[in-house]
Amino acid sequence: MIWSAALLMRKHGVEGTSFSEVIERARAPRGSIYHHFPGGKAQLIEEATRYAGEFIASGLVAALAEDDPVRGIREFVAGWTAVLRRSDFAAGCPVVAASLEGERTPGARNAAATAFTRWEQILTQALARHMSDGARARSIATLVISAIEGAVVLVRAQQSSEPLERVGAELERLLIAALASP
Amino acid sequence: MIWSAALLMRKHGVEGTSFSEVIERARAPRGSIYHHFPGGKAQLIEEATRYAGEFIASGLVAALAEDDPVRGIREFVAGWTAVLRRSDFAAGCPVVAASLEGERTPGARNAAATAFTRWEQILTQALARHMSDGARARSIATLVISAIEGAVVLVRAQQSSEPLERVGAELERLLIAALASP
Repeated sequence: MIWSAALLMRKHGVEGTSFSEVIERARAPRGSIYHHFPGGKAQLIEEATRYAGEFIASGLVAALAEDDPVRGIREFVAGWTAVLRRSDFAAGCPVVAASLEGERTPGARNAAATAFTRWEQILTQALARHMSDGARARSIATLVISAIEGAVVLVRAQQSSEPLERVGAELERLLIAALASP
Repeated sequence: MIWSAALLMRKHGVEGTSFSEVIERARAPRGSIYHHFPGGKAQLIEEATRYAGEFIASGLVAALAEDDPVRGIREFVAGWTAVLRRSDFAAGCPVVAASLEGERTPGARNAAATAFTRWEQILTQALARHMSDGARARSIATLVISAIEGAVVLVRAQQSSEPLERVGAELERLLIAALASP
């Protein structure tokens, strides 16, 4: 059900994701969702955000495992491009959807904040192995995550993967330059 | 009413923006909204997205008027930082909210696509006055818009303007380097 909720959030946002759709998609019995999520939809959305954050973190770790940040980010961007194309540019990032909840669902927003911090840490550490300036590694990590998340929004609006391709090319150029001058 | 809708979309997204709240905020008579927007909420959201897109485009044009893209983007980022701080990190970009609507409100999504294209054109032209490589100017423009929009999402999740400050510093560094090597 958590997985189904995350998939629905990608397309429809938090407001547009309903218990009944989650149950239908997860092929779960009707009463089970109230059993597993006594905190209601807010709890389900919070857990889905946490799950999605960890899922994407694993993807980042895998992409960066070969200690080649330029190639890793290229792979990560290619993975996102594939997801967007497969969904016909309908599915975005569930963690972004949760971020926009604000005080309406603070648990989801806080889970999104934790996810972004985790992704930044993974990327900062991967870059810092090749750069002496740790603060710079962190600000590049924030840029990479922001730029990819923003480009995913542009791709969905423009129904074309081109914005993400341009952003990927610019990030690659920036990473090559930053890692060449330690 | 269009202005009120855009302000509400910034905080609550499209699903969370209701006719009754728009009427209350705009202090408009109840029946007037159906008179002005016979297409219903979809029409109101579409017009609010178009309006917000043009409003932000004017801000970009003003920031870039002195033909100094580095300073212009710095001012644009500072403007966003001020908006986010004033709203206690609750208000984001209405055009991003519209982008996430997809097939639910295609008119709003298409208005968001038009806004992003317009901002990219403004920025590409401003950069191309200082760079011979027009394709590069365009990809930098896409990066700048994606990175700022993504950072605004991170700021809202983390309830701190720091992600946008780090992204602004990286964009400034990138622009200085790109404009120095025409």
